Amino acid sequence: VRIALAQTNSIVGDIQGNSRLIVAEAQRALKSGADLVAFPELALSGYPPEDLLLKDHFVLDCSEALLEIAESVPDIVVVVGLPLQEDDRCYNAAALTSQGSIVGWYRKIWLPNYGVFDEQRYFTPGDTVLVAQVEDSRIAITICEDIWRANGPGEVAARSGGASIILNLSMSPYHRGKGLERAGMLRERALASGLPVIYVNGVGGQDELVFDGQSLVLDGGGEVVARAAQFKDDLVLVDVELLSVGEGWRPSGIDSSDPEWRVQRAVVPHRSRHVGAEQEPLSETLRETMSSAGEVYAALCLGVHDYVKKNGFEKVVIGISGGIDSALTACVAVDALGADQVNLISMPSRYSSEGTRSDAECVANKLGAQFRVIPIEDLFVQYMSTLAPHLQGGEAGVTEQNIQARIRGNLLMAMSNKFGWLVLTTGNKSEMAVGYATLYGDMAGGFAVLKDVPKTLVYELAEYRNAQDGDGGPIPPTTLTRAPSAELAPDQTDQDTLPPYGLLDRVIEAYVVDDKSVQEMVDAGLPGETVRKVVAMIDGNEYKRRQSAPGVRITPKAFGKDRRLPITNRYRG
Amino acid sequence: VRIALAQTNSIVGDIQGNSRLIVAEAQRALKSGADLVAFPELALSGYPPEDLLLKDHFVLDCSEALLEIAESVPDIVVVVGLPLQEDDRCYNAAALTSQGSIVGWYRKIWLPNYGVFDEQRYFTPGDTVLVAQVEDSRIAITICEDIWRANGPGEVAARSGGASIILNLSMSPYHRGKGLERAGMLRERALASGLPVIYVNGVGGQDELVFDGQSLVLDGGGEVVARAAQFKDDLVLVDVELLSVGEGWRPSGIDSSDPEWRVQRAVVPHRSRHVGAEQEPLSETLRETMSSAGEVYAALCLGVHDYVKKNGFEKVVIGISGGIDSALTACVAVDALGADQVNLISMPSRYSSEGTRSDAECVANKLGAQFRVIPIEDLFVQYMSTLAPHLQGGEAGVTEQNIQARIRGNLLMAMSNKFGWLVLTTGNKSEMAVGYATLYGDMAGGFAVLKDVPKTLVYELAEYRNAQDGDGGPIPPTTLTRAPSAELAPDQTDQDTLPPYGLLDRVIEAYVVDDKSVQEMVDAGLPGETVRKVVAMIDGNEYKRRQSAPGVRITPKAFGKDRRLPITNRYRG
Repeated sequence: VRIALAQTNSIVGDIQGNSRLIVAEAQRALKSGADLVAFPELALSGYPPEDLLLKDHFVLDCSEALLEIAESVPDIVVVVGLPLQEDDRCYNAAALTSQGSIVGWYRKIWLPNYGVFDEQRYFTPGDTVLVAQVEDSRIAITICEDIWRANGPGEVAARSGGASIILNLSMSPYHRGKGLERAGMLRERALASGLPVIYVNGVGGQDELVFDGQSLVLDGGGEVVARAAQFKDDLVLVDVELLSVGEGWRPSGIDSSDPEWRVQRAVVPHRSRHVGAEQEPLSETLRETMSSAGEVYAALCLGVHDYVKKNGFEKVVIGISGGIDSALTACVAVDALGADQVNLISMPSRYSSEGTRSDAECVANKLGAQFRVIPIEDLFVQYMSTLAPHLQGGEAGVTEQNIQARIRGNLLMAMSNKFGWLVLTTGNKSEMAVGYATLYGDMAGGFAVLKDVPKTLVYELAEYRNAQDGDGGPIPPTTLTRAPSAELAPDQTDQDTLPPYGLLDRVIEAYVVDDKSVQEMVDAGLPGETVRKVVAMIDGNEYKRRQSAPGVRITPKAFGKDRRLPITNRYRG
Repeated sequence: VRIALAQTNSIVGDIQGNSRLIVAEAQRALKSGADLVAFPELALSGYPPEDLLLKDHFVLDCSEALLEIAESVPDIVVVVGLPLQEDDRCYNAAALTSQGSIVGWYRKIWLPNYGVFDEQRYFTPGDTVLVAQVEDSRIAITICEDIWRANGPGEVAARSGGASIILNLSMSPYHRGKGLERAGMLRERALASGLPVIYVNGVGGQDELVFDGQSLVLDGGGEVVARAAQFKDDLVLVDVELLSVGEGWRPSGIDSSDPEWRVQRAVVPHRSRHVGAEQEPLSETLRETMSSAGEVYAALCLGVHDYVKKNGFEKVVIGISGGIDSALTACVAVDALGADQVNLISMPSRYSSEGTRSDAECVANKLGAQFRVIPIEDLFVQYMSTLAPHLQGGEAGVTEQNIQARIRGNLLMAMSNKFGWLVLTTGNKSEMAVGYATLYGDMAGGFAVLKDVPKTLVYELAEYRNAQDGDGGPIPPTTLTRAPSAELAPDQTDQDTLPPYGLLDRVIEAYVVDDKSVQEMVDAGLPGETVRKVVAMIDGNEYKRRQSAPGVRITPKAFGKDRRLPITNRYRG
């Protein structure tokens, strides 16, 4: 049997658009001789549809679109994810269509309800393993979480249902290194069942989530024999030829002379079951790539690209300060959207140094983005004058610093309102964590590119980006070496207020990502005073984060759907 | 047996503070002769603790605090809600303590995972019904959702466990009319089991949720025999005296001469089971009160009070325009916090009319709140001048309107930064729905008082509030009758852009609260063009709402945890 893995980029709620994409990909697969084409989880509705699933008519519209798909591509078996309403219950389902009709349904059994997932809010779990006979193959169909569980439906199908292939439709959100986790898990499933595993993952950005693709095919020995592109759509074909049940699999080449699409030739040899083998499923080089700074950078680009385009924007605007965060944000925006779509605005104040002013312009020139300067001095003076009778002449402090940041926010929003540019914010995860950012100031904007990137990783990414260009790259060395500063007061540096970023990021990792207690962090060797100060800052700034723009999730726990802390919260542990 | 219902106001995460409150209330109950005192669901941790529950040390700290409580009040049986960790599982539990130790545990069986609830994210469901013998009574212990299900653990305990009383610990969030729903449901449970039902609900505001109290005692015939205060803490005592099992209950009076606390005398006569009886469980007057404008107003006051105080603020600041929304917000703030804590700032522009300017001052004077005027003209002129080269002299439009709103947001935030005042925003649900508000402008602030109050209800509440004062109340008649306007452009009114509020609110109710499709709304008689326009506005403004401040939930579906729609979303159905 020839199987096509259609690694598609659906748009949430765009049932018609997703249908057209599914039909087009199915036709491409058919033209290349595939017997079956498999799409990701909920590919028809887009993923995650969240509370759209509470609208009966939305789920019904998906079912209607499925019938049209079945009729449009009768000559290939289509396996596609969509929500299915039956009586009062909704399932996260996979439909099988063939010859113009729906010939089978699988209903996801394991519904994740942790991290970024809320599937028990919407779905009833299925209770039936499905093995689909296609040609002479028996394919166990599973959906995402199903395959993360040992002895899940795939293995049950292998043992009791005579399955010869395990197919999994996924929408597995990216975080750094997630691909390796997945490959390791899939290897375990292949080894446990002795069957080839065909893992079809979606791709694309959806609000804070990025799906990285990397659909995989593993043979029954757990070796990866085919891998789809990361961070872009792809169509991968594999031949799985059954000699006779129980005897083994014979590799069979694919000969495609159609130049229109990429055909990845892959064979799935049968292997005897060898649990615990030490053999690497992926080459060492690929393993390194799969959690590198370059991978993170590509995730940010896809996240920005899809948020901008899927929300109907063309151009973006970024306030560029001459610091590293806005420089990196500008690089990502240009690489994601093209230099012509990116507007960089420098908004110097009385506290901006010559160095940062010229670095800002330098980044813009190197990137070839639109650049303009709008000084904020006159507005700042006017605010001070308007507020003088009310601020009662107290010492300049946070109030005056925030006013500068908010003037900049207003100016960017004015340009956004006038020209329809989406404002990208530049704050990093370290700042978001401790609230070292001005609400309605530098936090004003529609998408927060570096929201989940700790400051230490910002440097890594900047160096990675610079290394891509022969000329040293777009970010000036001075930007990389200058002590970080908000430049909102004379001779200010971030470290007046914050611990060194190396230390801060370790505390954030332990507290935010790993949920460690203060005591555990101190026991692990982190300095108690710093830990307590940082924890208090993180907890005390939940209100700011709640009003922040969404941003690309690239760690196992971002400040988004995967971290739901109350604002009103007196716990300090 | 004498049972005390301790309707307490816990603070999320304040384990020590909540413990002290629990001990103090248990001592009060003991002094009045109670054998058992029951506290709300998760009273020890506060509710909902959200992702604090993912911190093992948090759950452990709760268990340690429970031991101290048990030792502090050995002479009364305490039933109190807290999270319980066992192996890798966490339960939403109720502990029974007596004589200094923990004598029993109940683990919540039904875990709600819809609406504002995410309990399956945290908890494993229990599987054991608990009947606690206290004196000669056998008390079935249940938690919140357990009792909303027919044939739930209470009824099972009645049939199989020989229970003579059903006790329920709840944290049931308020929405308008929720008390009547609860009373109706509890009546069904009492009638189905033939047993008295003791329903202990918590009280207080927690971020967007308000818990209204109204703990209830129903006899076995489904009649309400005791009801605790709404929107404030309370301690209610009931005597339930068992003559002999199966024979019936004899009322017994309570004589408390302790003046320190309110003792509500209530008796729980046994009644034969009479399912389907037409008898009203609550007096007609009370029924009317229970979903009146006054009830909503009280909910807003409690929500504001608790958000401000529990987050460590004393004073608030509100931009007051002379319109009805800010006038009502000011009333709620003053009634919740006292006039001395409320700062009202009028920020007139070139487009502000004499009428609104003087109405703003009038409201402030009537309320006795601090009032000041900060004109924004000079700042507006300066923005126009700074931006002139960049806005390319296009026609004045939304950009210029938003600049005015954002100047006001900045000024309020400056006062907030300087003096530690919390900014209360004034936008209503109708505006939040269609995005008729400026992000970082009038949306700037920490708490959005009217966020879930549709404009038509704003008028109702304003009239309710005015009717409370002999002199006609704080809101001038002109404010009530003037056509609503943002006053950001010459001769502007809301209805230049929006359908009449009566119609708009009906569409919002149908689309947002009831999840109706466009077709269903049209079939129900709403005008198609308006429906499509409003739906597009609601969907297109998800990004704004995502950056809005939390506000008090007073309807069955607010723009908060109970409505989780993607920003990137192309569905228009």
